Amino acid sequence: MKFNVFTQMEYVVRSPGTLILNIHALRSPQQTVLNEEFTIEPYIKAEELMLALGENRLVRFEVAEPGTIKVTYKALVDNCYEIADYSRQEETMVAQLDVSVLPYLNPSRYCQSDKLYRLAHNLFGHITNPFEKVVALTNWIHSNVQYLSGYSNTQTSAFDTVTEQAGVCRDFAHLGIALCRALTIPARYFTGYAYHLKPADFHACFEAFLGGSWVLFDATQLVPLNGLVKIATGRDAADTAIANIFGDVTFTTMQVSCELAEEENFEPVYYKPDEFKGLSYL
Amino acid sequence: MKFNVFTQMEYVVRSPGTLILNIHALRSPQQTVLNEEFTIEPYIKAEELMLALGENRLVRFEVAEPGTIKVTYKALVDNCYEIADYSRQEETMVAQLDVSVLPYLNPSRYCQSDKLYRLAHNLFGHITNPFEKVVALTNWIHSNVQYLSGYSNTQTSAFDTVTEQAGVCRDFAHLGIALCRALTIPARYFTGYAYHLKPADFHACFEAFLGGSWVLFDATQLVPLNGLVKIATGRDAADTAIANIFGDVTFTTMQVSCELAEEENFEPVYYKPDEFKGLSYL
Amino acid sequence: MKFNVFTQMEYVVRSPGTLILNIHALRSPQQTVLNEEFTIEPYIKAEELMLALGENRLVRFEVAEPGTIKVTYKALVDNCYEIADYSRQEETMVAQLDVSVLPYLNPSRYCQSDKLYRLAHNLFGHITNPFEKVVALTNWIHSNVQYLSGYSNTQTSAFDTVTEQAGVCRDFAHLGIALCRALTIPARYFTGYAYHLKPADFHACFEAFLGGSWVLFDATQLVPLNGLVKIATGRDAADTAIANIFGDVTFTTMQVSCELAEEENFEPVYYKPDEFKGLSYL
Amino acid sequence: MKFNVFTQMEYVVRSPGTLILNIHALRSPQQTVLNEEFTIEPYIKAEELMLALGENRLVRFEVAEPGTIKVTYKALVDNCYEIADYSRQEETMVAQLDVSVLPYLNPSRYCQSDKLYRLAHNLFGHITNPFEKVVALTNWIHSNVQYLSGYSNTQTSAFDTVTEQAGVCRDFAHLGIALCRALTIPARYFTGYAYHLKPADFHACFEAFLGGSWVLFDATQLVPLNGLVKIATGRDAADTAIANIFGDVTFTTMQVSCELAEEENFEPVYYKPDEFKGLSYL
Repeated sequence: MKFNVFTQMEYVVRSPGTLILNIHALRSPQQTVLNEEFTIEPYIKAEELMLALGENRLVRFEVAEPGTIKVTYKALVDNCYEIADYSRQEETMVAQLDVSVLPYLNPSRYCQSDKLYRLAHNLFGHITNPFEKVVALTNWIHSNVQYLSGYSNTQTSAFDTVTEQAGVCRDFAHLGIALCRALTIPARYFTGYAYHLKPADFHACFEAFLGGSWVLFDATQLVPLNGLVKIATGRDAADTAIANIFGDVTFTTMQVSCELAEEENFEPVYYKPDEFKGLSYL
Repeated sequence: MKFNVFTQMEYVVRSPGTLILNIHALRSPQQTVLNEEFTIEPYIKAEELMLALGENRLVRFEVAEPGTIKVTYKALVDNCYEIADYSRQEETMVAQLDVSVLPYLNPSRYCQSDKLYRLAHNLFGHITNPFEKVVALTNWIHSNVQYLSGYSNTQTSAFDTVTEQAGVCRDFAHLGIALCRALTIPARYFTGYAYHLKPADFHACFEAFLGGSWVLFDATQLVPLNGLVKIATGRDAADTAIANIFGDVTFTTMQVSCELAEEENFEPVYYKPDEFKGLSYL
Repeated sequence: MKFNVFTQMEYVVRSPGTLILNIHALRSPQQTVLNEEFTIEPYIKAEELMLALGENRLVRFEVAEPGTIKVTYKALVDNCYEIADYSRQEETMVAQLDVSVLPYLNPSRYCQSDKLYRLAHNLFGHITNPFEKVVALTNWIHSNVQYLSGYSNTQTSAFDTVTEQAGVCRDFAHLGIALCRALTIPARYFTGYAYHLKPADFHACFEAFLGGSWVLFDATQLVPLNGLVKIATGRDAADTAIANIFGDVTFTTMQVSCELAEEENFEPVYYKPDEFKGLSYL
Repeated sequence: MKFNVFTQMEYVVRSPGTLILNIHALRSPQQTVLNEEFTIEPYIKAEELMLALGENRLVRFEVAEPGTIKVTYKALVDNCYEIADYSRQEETMVAQLDVSVLPYLNPSRYCQSDKLYRLAHNLFGHITNPFEKVVALTNWIHSNVQYLSGYSNTQTSAFDTVTEQAGVCRDFAHLGIALCRALTIPARYFTGYAYHLKPADFHACFEAFLGGSWVLFDATQLVPLNGLVKIATGRDAADTAIANIFGDVTFTTMQVSCELAEEENFEPVYYKPDEFKGLSYL
């Protein structure tokens, strides 16, 4: 499925500094970036970085002159996902997990799974099928956490959200990850461009590792699961921040869009009880 | 019902300091202290204090000499409670609450009801009868929080316990209070001597203000509700600590007991669905 | 010193509810309310309440009809304070504290003094004079915490502020109180109207109990100490909230002012090293 | 410098589970493991894992039978470090940092540098030399945080320790890391065997990235800096736990030792003002 993704951000620079942005569509064997364009006005030379884990593309540049800069990214991306019956997967035992997956069992900055152990087991410990477990916790988050724009901030973590029960997509994702890890299911954060997200913005959801695949879950239920263009995955938002700013530089405005390339015929996919059994980005 | 209550505590004094103990059975129009004896060995003159709110009896004394002191309290107390069908009570509207009850709606050190607002409403907001609401939240605590001796410490609060889901009687009480207040039901902390508590110790539970009465609830379900001798009520454990120590003085050992006076014939009272409808200490 | 104080607040009512406001100037033997006027438009009968401790005046009223209400309070108040050399006061030992002062040693919702014990002693434990101790901690807050409008919210506590080092007057006061209590100095929250506060708003600072007097401290250094009209004192903002709202009622706008009555000749008082030695509202 | 390191741990197994241990001395181009032996009694086949980042060696095995197991590891290791004048290093700008180092600027589970930004800048922002900055914060931790065995637990984080000011080596390390990252200095957790640590145990300290080297700092000042045998580095203790246990398996007892191989002549290295300028493990 081909999407035109676009973002434009403005920053006010007051002193020399460095920005690291994480807004490029991920290039992977399956997600193809057909064309893309990244510009900074006025022109600054930027450096593209890839973390060893291969899960995000960073762009880093220095700002030296006080003033306003405008960053624009646009790309045509062919995303790639698989729909399958993940409910048939048996739980992957820790003893069989690939070593690259193990870090996604550990607690992280915003996903303090160590503190949610009893709660997760009280709520979901009775469910034996691992896919049904993650579906249940995703539904629980959707039912119990209120989507409230502006409620949380960059310091809000799953430990806060589980009790305060309000937040934005980032908080829904962190809580999903923390609950999975507390149940010994590896889970990671997913950011991307999202088709049909209103108002348009970057989106966050999470992937749980089930039977050898990273299966996508979105407790916000705000967008079709198959309309995402992956930017990055990581342990949580600390690893995959849209922007890391070093220096006296302030974000002012942003536009984001994700549109279907014209010729496409899009059939939205959502989880439905007893029907659809899982989607995984490749 | 008459009980012999007893406690003996030892402290090691290394420098001059002050102790404030809250171990005396409360004297109230209904709870009669038939006889009591308080001693400190070696002898120190102590001062008995009563807070304005009349909800606890403090004893304060200075320790000057390094060494060991032994504090002993024993009393014969006739407690007094009422069993009634509090389920018929309508919710007391905030507009009708007596001014002396209003502070028990506020969040306090260990009962951050302001942070539990959505959670309380998600879990119990659908229940209209106020008594049933408190019964439901008490049962929820009992089912979800594991009683684990030594799990928590003096800094643990309801905000921790609601997620960590383990603790001792103090934590069960704090969580009950916080949930009540989040539902606009005044609630306060209750400490006392408890008959049949094993191992013997001071006990904590909570009272919710329903239809004009402070009704007792105990999410631990460890003791019969009618076997308590009240020491104090307050906003939470910060107001009703068994001991406040100022100076280099260390608690070493403690014994507590609460025995039925011989002639008594005790019939334990517990909450049972569809049967017993509430107990309130007078 | 006479001040005209004024506030006007608007609320949008969507369902029946109750409001409890704490905006009246305190009436005390020393602070004289020469005249005052309280109105709600459209007219609602309100009830004035005084908590047992006599430290605030609450007004409570029910809102029944959906719509907008406007609350106006104005008063001419003669405040009353004493300037004295509190630096000569010796520390009041816990053993000598009046029982009514003891609760102000306990931790409270926003002032977790129990968690700041070591920090307070590491920073200020070497100072022996109790007045100098409070001056030092007030200066430390002023130097280390940045006044940032909008930084904190109603859940922010001293435990957050001590590390995050940014906040508003409420946060500065909570941290001052928590540090005092951690040093075994009773302390309480003070809210009032403040002359020369820009932008005009309600103000919060704190009082420490030194040598038998509640001495005023304001780590924000935003206003002269002698330009305050006391509304309330309490353990912290949980006891003295400007408004407690029960029901689906939303605060929209507010105006506050505090002006010198015409005939007055105001000489502002601020703490200055080696000069001015303390001010206490009576 | 050659050390004989040794650890023996016992676990009680009650149900089938998996253990992942991180107790092997790291093999690196510079740290040579001359010989080593790892045994489990009764015999269980274990699998050795190396995370992609190459910073630790994990051993994973399944326990199937209820009972007691004993794990023993011993090795003769030649560690390798460099002593140099790191105080001459200029700060490495974010724009020049290698991409592999960037993750060590992010906040992590136990090192919430995002919450310590203002505090770090208030305390250490005036120091321009990056090495002196880290020395200063390490000394500040040593002076302000009390080493108290048993004070903290596995959930304690730098955000707690910075205020509570007590903890163990793990807490000292987490706070050092969080402060470094808040100052835009990459920092990571270091665990190892430590010569002269009393009582013998695993040790934790931290490394700051200065001028291209990971320089070692230890705010506990409990051991000579040159007596460490590295086990692992990572973002914090979540990445480098000595043991991760999955299943109903309980740790019971542990022995650890780190002794100089006989022929060695050990001269302990400690930081001293104006003298010694830094040590880095290679």
